[in-house]
Amino acid sequence: MIVLGIDPGYALMGWGVVESLGGRLRLIDYGCIETKAGEPMQHRLMALQQGVRDLVNHYQPDEVAFEELFFAQNVTTALMVGAARGAAIIAAAEYTENLYEYTPMQIKQAITGYGKADKKQMQQMVKMLLNMQEIPKPDDAADAIACAITHCQAGRMSQQFRMK
Amino acid sequence: MIVLGIDPGYALMGWGVVESLGGRLRLIDYGCIETKAGEPMQHRLMALQQGVRDLVNHYQPDEVAFEELFFAQNVTTALMVGAARGAAIIAAAEYTENLYEYTPMQIKQAITGYGKADKKQMQQMVKMLLNMQEIPKPDDAADAIACAITHCQAGRMSQQFRMK
Repeated sequence: MIVLGIDPGYALMGWGVVESLGGRLRLIDYGCIETKAGEPMQHRLMALQQGVRDLVNHYQPDEVAFEELFFAQNVTTALMVGAARGAAIIAAAEYTENLYEYTPMQIKQAITGYGKADKKQMQQMVKMLLNMQEIPKPDDAADAIACAITHCQAGRMSQQFRMK
Repeated sequence: MIVLGIDPGYALMGWGVVESLGGRLRLIDYGCIETKAGEPMQHRLMALQQGVRDLVNHYQPDEVAFEELFFAQNVTTALMVGAARGAAIIAAAEYTENLYEYTPMQIKQAITGYGKADKKQMQQMVKMLLNMQEIPKPDDAADAIACAITHCQAGRMSQQFRMK
């Protein structure tokens, strides 16, 4: 099974593609879709949606796992990140019905066994689980890979969270 | 010039199409794109984006005017309405570069001359300005028509607000 993990963001949308075969994980690719501050909002949203469209068409994932958004920040930010997330969800939904979503705490729990693990612990575990030479960069891509791993492991534990 | 006004929402997205010819306004059509609570989010967002795509293709507006979102409510709501707005903006941007946005206060000012007019005053003025028999229903459609009128009048006053 191939899983595309997505960490939705407006300036940077992280993504990671992980294959799970008989319980073994393999990293296929990862990166970020980047949109530039100063560009009109509509162009940035279109680029994010088209970027995710390109990803699903290229990697043909069986399932797509999103990191859920949580905010301590203000409503204006939430409107923009909500739009970015929506753009990504629509592009993924055009391709497959198999969309899932995990909270940051569920992801931390799945990767490190501890729901309040810090960023560095998370990235070290992602590196180890996928036999990577280096910690994946930038953070947004590492988060997306962690989300994809979480979904692969949730499958083994029947704890997948389908988007609704 | 034909203007499509949009009042972005997640459950109800209001729209109104107004023609402005030499300072005279004519209502072409109006309505709401509706999505059902209980449907998966991804289906609702796809329906909103496709709904706006159908509108621009059908009415072929020269320009599209959005009502800006303001929130007193919580961040969770902002994420969803932001996604709905984003879906609509992308669909409109696929069709035209001419996107504009007005705050509720700018719209009230343009329609009634008073930035804090109430809903009833607004709807009465919309009815009068467009020679309608009845007040347009539902409220979301009336708001979208008001936004389209605002854009037509802003053009005469060189006070159009281009989306950025």
